[in-house]
Amino acid sequence: MACRSGLTPVLRRARALGLLKSFNTTHASSANALRYLSTSSPRSFRAATPTLAKFTTDSYPEIQRNPRFAQITKDHVSYFQLLLGKGSAVIDGVTTELATDDMEPYNGDWMRKYRGHCKLVLKPGSTEEVSKVLKYCNDNMLAVVPQGGNTGLVGGSVPVFDEIVINTSRMNKIQSFDEVSGILVVDAGVVLEVADQFLAEKGYIFPLDLGAKGSCHIGGNVATNAGGLRLLRYGSLHGSVLGIEAVLPDGTIVDDLSKLRKNNTGYDLKQLFIGGEGTIGMITAVSIICPQRSSAVNVAFLAVESYEKMQRTFREAKTQLGEILSAFELMDLGSQHLVNNAQGSKPPLETESPFYCLIETSGSNSDHDNEKLEKFLEDVMSREIVSDGVVAQDQTQIKSLWSQREGISEATAHWGGVYKYDVSIPLKDLYRLVDDTREKIEAAGLKGDTDEFPVLDVVGYGHMGDSNLHLNVAVRRYDKRVEEVLEPFVYEWIAKVQGSISAEHGLGLAKKNYIGYSRSETMIGLMKQIKNLYDPNGIMNPYKYM
Amino acid sequence: MACRSGLTPVLRRARALGLLKSFNTTHASSANALRYLSTSSPRSFRAATPTLAKFTTDSYPEIQRNPRFAQITKDHVSYFQLLLGKGSAVIDGVTTELATDDMEPYNGDWMRKYRGHCKLVLKPGSTEEVSKVLKYCNDNMLAVVPQGGNTGLVGGSVPVFDEIVINTSRMNKIQSFDEVSGILVVDAGVVLEVADQFLAEKGYIFPLDLGAKGSCHIGGNVATNAGGLRLLRYGSLHGSVLGIEAVLPDGTIVDDLSKLRKNNTGYDLKQLFIGGEGTIGMITAVSIICPQRSSAVNVAFLAVESYEKMQRTFREAKTQLGEILSAFELMDLGSQHLVNNAQGSKPPLETESPFYCLIETSGSNSDHDNEKLEKFLEDVMSREIVSDGVVAQDQTQIKSLWSQREGISEATAHWGGVYKYDVSIPLKDLYRLVDDTREKIEAAGLKGDTDEFPVLDVVGYGHMGDSNLHLNVAVRRYDKRVEEVLEPFVYEWIAKVQGSISAEHGLGLAKKNYIGYSRSETMIGLMKQIKNLYDPNGIMNPYKYM
Repeated sequence: MACRSGLTPVLRRARALGLLKSFNTTHASSANALRYLSTSSPRSFRAATPTLAKFTTDSYPEIQRNPRFAQITKDHVSYFQLLLGKGSAVIDGVTTELATDDMEPYNGDWMRKYRGHCKLVLKPGSTEEVSKVLKYCNDNMLAVVPQGGNTGLVGGSVPVFDEIVINTSRMNKIQSFDEVSGILVVDAGVVLEVADQFLAEKGYIFPLDLGAKGSCHIGGNVATNAGGLRLLRYGSLHGSVLGIEAVLPDGTIVDDLSKLRKNNTGYDLKQLFIGGEGTIGMITAVSIICPQRSSAVNVAFLAVESYEKMQRTFREAKTQLGEILSAFELMDLGSQHLVNNAQGSKPPLETESPFYCLIETSGSNSDHDNEKLEKFLEDVMSREIVSDGVVAQDQTQIKSLWSQREGISEATAHWGGVYKYDVSIPLKDLYRLVDDTREKIEAAGLKGDTDEFPVLDVVGYGHMGDSNLHLNVAVRRYDKRVEEVLEPFVYEWIAKVQGSISAEHGLGLAKKNYIGYSRSETMIGLMKQIKNLYDPNGIMNPYKYM
Repeated sequence: MACRSGLTPVLRRARALGLLKSFNTTHASSANALRYLSTSSPRSFRAATPTLAKFTTDSYPEIQRNPRFAQITKDHVSYFQLLLGKGSAVIDGVTTELATDDMEPYNGDWMRKYRGHCKLVLKPGSTEEVSKVLKYCNDNMLAVVPQGGNTGLVGGSVPVFDEIVINTSRMNKIQSFDEVSGILVVDAGVVLEVADQFLAEKGYIFPLDLGAKGSCHIGGNVATNAGGLRLLRYGSLHGSVLGIEAVLPDGTIVDDLSKLRKNNTGYDLKQLFIGGEGTIGMITAVSIICPQRSSAVNVAFLAVESYEKMQRTFREAKTQLGEILSAFELMDLGSQHLVNNAQGSKPPLETESPFYCLIETSGSNSDHDNEKLEKFLEDVMSREIVSDGVVAQDQTQIKSLWSQREGISEATAHWGGVYKYDVSIPLKDLYRLVDDTREKIEAAGLKGDTDEFPVLDVVGYGHMGDSNLHLNVAVRRYDKRVEEVLEPFVYEWIAKVQGSISAEHGLGLAKKNYIGYSRSETMIGLMKQIKNLYDPNGIMNPYKYM
C-alpha cells in the first residue's frame, strides 16, 4: 500500500485535537493488532480447497424435474449451432463429452452452494438471436436459465436440472452515450465496471456499484434489481433505468429502450423486468440515466462502540453531510475479522470496536466537502458518538478502506461456504437480528474455532443508509443442522418486524419458498398471473421463485 | 411584495463588477417595462368570462358510448347511498335534479376543454369502501372514472359520458411518517401541498412539486406519474414511491404498501399503477421516500439571449452547481408576457430577452451554496452566456420568482383556452418545436392581437433539466382550425426526433389516438394485454388511452 503519510489536510485540526487517528498501515506489531490477530486460530481460518458444490438436486431433493419439459436432443443442438455458429457461442455437452471444467462456470455459483446439470450453454450475439433461441425453446418446451456474470447470491442464475443456459457474455457493446443528458445505452452483457470506467472518462458515474462489479453484467443487475453501494445517493434502478429491451419466451422483442428522461405514454412495462429475475423474459439491452461524477470524493472509516451510537452517527451524517453523503455502510467486528484474515490484510484502525462504519461523500467542490466532513467528524468525535476514525487521503487509501466493506461478501465464503440473508429491517431493529441469530447458533452448539464446528462466525454488515442488512453465517461446510436453525427462524423474525426477506439480492432458488413472509397471498396470486401471462409454458428460469 | 432591498450578499461582488442587476420591483415606469407592457393590447389580453366548456361528446363526436355499459338506475344509487351514507359521500343527479354547479367541478376540467355527462359522484372514505364500490360497478357493468384533485391536463380525470366519478377527497389522512428513514404513508386524497407542509415541519420535503400542488391529490399524482419541478434532483415517482395500495375493478385490494426502502421480492406490480391513469385500478394509498429538506435554498432568474446560450447555461449549471442544483426551468419571452399580463404583475428583470431560466439550488450549507452560485453566475455573466439576472434574497422573492414559472400554465388558459403539449425532446432540438409551431400557426393566419384571431401566442417553457418542453398555444376560444394545424403536425415532429408525446402529463383523452407516435405496435399490444388482464370488462376510465 502506498499510503503511509498520515492525515488528509482537512482533518489536521481534528488530529490536533486528538480526536482522530492517522491512516495506519504499520501497526501490525502493536498490542491492539496482535490482540486482534489472536482472536482466531490459524486452523479455523484456513481457506477451504475449492471443491465442486453439491448438486442442487441433492440439496433440495423435494424439487422434481418438470416432466413437461423436453430433453435436449442432437437435433436441438444442431439447430442452435446452425443459428449461432459452432464456435464459442455453443458449449455442447449433449452430443459431446465435455470436461467438467467447461460447463462448471455456468452450472455452479461462486458460493459453491448451487450446482445444476446443464449440458448446453448458448451465447447469442444479438437480440434477434435471443429472440430465435427463446422462440425455439418455447415451441419445443425446452427450459432455459438467462445468465449474466453469474455473481448472484440466491441461486437464480444457475440451472437446477438440465435447463439450457443462455448467457449474455457475447452481447457486450456500449451502444450509445449522450454527454449532455448522461443517458447510457448498453447491451445486457456489458460488465458493470467496464461501463463505469467508460463513464468515468466522460465525467459521469454509473448509478449502481457493488462488490461484484468486475464480473457482473448490467443485464443481470437490472434483472435482479441490484441495490448496492450507491442506492442511498442515486436511488434504485426502478428510477434510473429509462428503457429496456427484452425478449419474451415466445420470441417477442419488447422494444422499450427509451432514451428519454421522461416518457409518460402508457403502462411502464419495463418495470416488470427490473427484479423479474429472468422469469418472464430475458433483458438484452438497458438504457439508464447516469449522474455527473463527483470530482471530490472522501471516505472515512469510523469505529463506533454500540449499535445505538451507530444510529446516532447515521442521523448526524444524514443531517450534517446532507447532499454530499453518498454511502453509509455498517460493518461489525466479526465481518472485519473475516475480511482481514481472508485477505491477509491489516485493519485500518488499531483499536478494536464492536462496530465500524464507512462514510463516503461525493461532491463538486473539495474544499466545501472537506469542511463539511471535518465539522461532522469533530462533532461526532467530541461528543463521543464515534470513538476512532481515519480518513483516506488518496485513491489508494479510498480503495483500501472500501475493501474493508466490499471484501466481506467474498471473505465470508472463504472457508467453505456461507449462508447469506439480505434483508430490509426498520433501522432501530436492524442489528438485533445478528445478535439473535448468533445466540441461536451458539445455543445449538454449532459455532466454534475448530473444524468440528460447522459455523465460523455470524456477522452483520450492509447498507445502513437503506435499512438493508446482510446477515452472513460463515461456515466451513454446508450443514443441514445450521440451515434448520436459520430457517424459518430468520424469516419469521423479519416478518414480525414487517421487514423484507430480500432487500436487494432477489429470491432465486434460495428464497422461493419464503416469499410469503414478505408478500400477501393476494400479491403472490397477482404475480403468478403475470408469470402465466408472459410465460404460459413456464420455460423461463423454472424452479425459482415463480 | 416585501423585497425592495436589492441584492443578496453573496452576489455583491457580481454586482460590483456590474454583472448582475438587483431584484427589481420598482421599474414599472422604466422605459423597458413600458415597452414590455405595450406588446399586448388590453383587448387581446382581456380575460374570458368563464363559460361552461363544450361537452367532450360534441368535441369528439367519433367517440361513442360503449353500449355494454349499464345505465345508472335508482337501485344503483340506493346501493351506494346505503354503502357510503347519504351525506356528502354521494352526489346524486340520477334520482334528483341537481344544479349544474353541483356536478360541474367533477364533470369538467380546469382548462374548460373537456366536459362529461356524469350524474353520480361517489366519495368513499376508505379502501374497503372503494373495493365495494368497484366490485359493485364491475358486477353491474357500470363504468367509472377515478378522480383526485382534477387538475390533470389531458382530460384523464373527467368522464366523457355518464361514467360514475369516484373521487378521493374523503380519503385524506396522513397515515404515518418515519423521521429516521423519511418514509411517508398517505391516503390517495391527501393534497400535495398539505403533505409537503407536514414534511417541512419535520425537516423533510416531498420529492414531487408542481404548479397545481394546492389542489392536486397524491393519488392522482402517482396515477399520472407526475414529473414536476423536483424531478431533476429527486428522480421520478417510479423510484421514490415505495409502496401502493390500490383496488382492482373486481374489488381485489392490491396490498403493496411497503414501508421499506428496498424490497426485492417478486415483480414490482405497483409500478403498473404509476402512470396507469386509473385504467386498471384505483390507487387508495401511497408510501413514498422523502428526502431531507435543504436548509439553504437559492433561486436565480436569468435572461439569456438565445437557445444556444441557454444550452450552455444548462451545461455550466450542471457542472458548476453539481449536487446542489435542484431545478433548471426554461421560459420564453411569450410565456412571461402571458404570466405578467394574467397576474397583473411586473417582470423581475427590466431587460427583455427571448429566453429566461430559473435556477434553484438546495443544499445543507448556505455559505457553500452561495459561494458555488456566485462563482457560477460570475462565470456565465462574464463570459456573456447569460445577459442579466437576479437572485432572490428571501422567501418572498423566491416565491415571486417561482411564480414567473409556475404561473405560466394557468396564464396560458386565462384568455379562453389553451392547447397544451407536454413532450420530451432531445435537448438540442427542444425549442425548435416552438419556433416551427409558431410559424405554422402564423402561416395559417390564426394568430393575432385582436379577437378575430383564435390564437394569442405560441409559447414554450418547461423542465429543461429533464429535456421536457411544454408547448402551449394560448387561444381566445377552442377552434377546429387551430387543432388541424397542430395535429398531427406536433406528434409527427416529435416522432421524427424520437421524442415522447407525453413527458409527464399522461395520455388521457387528449392523446389517446397518438400513442403510436411514441410506442411501437408491440408495446401497445402488450399494454392492451395488461388492461385486459386487470380490467376485462373495461369499466375503468373508459374512452381514455387504453
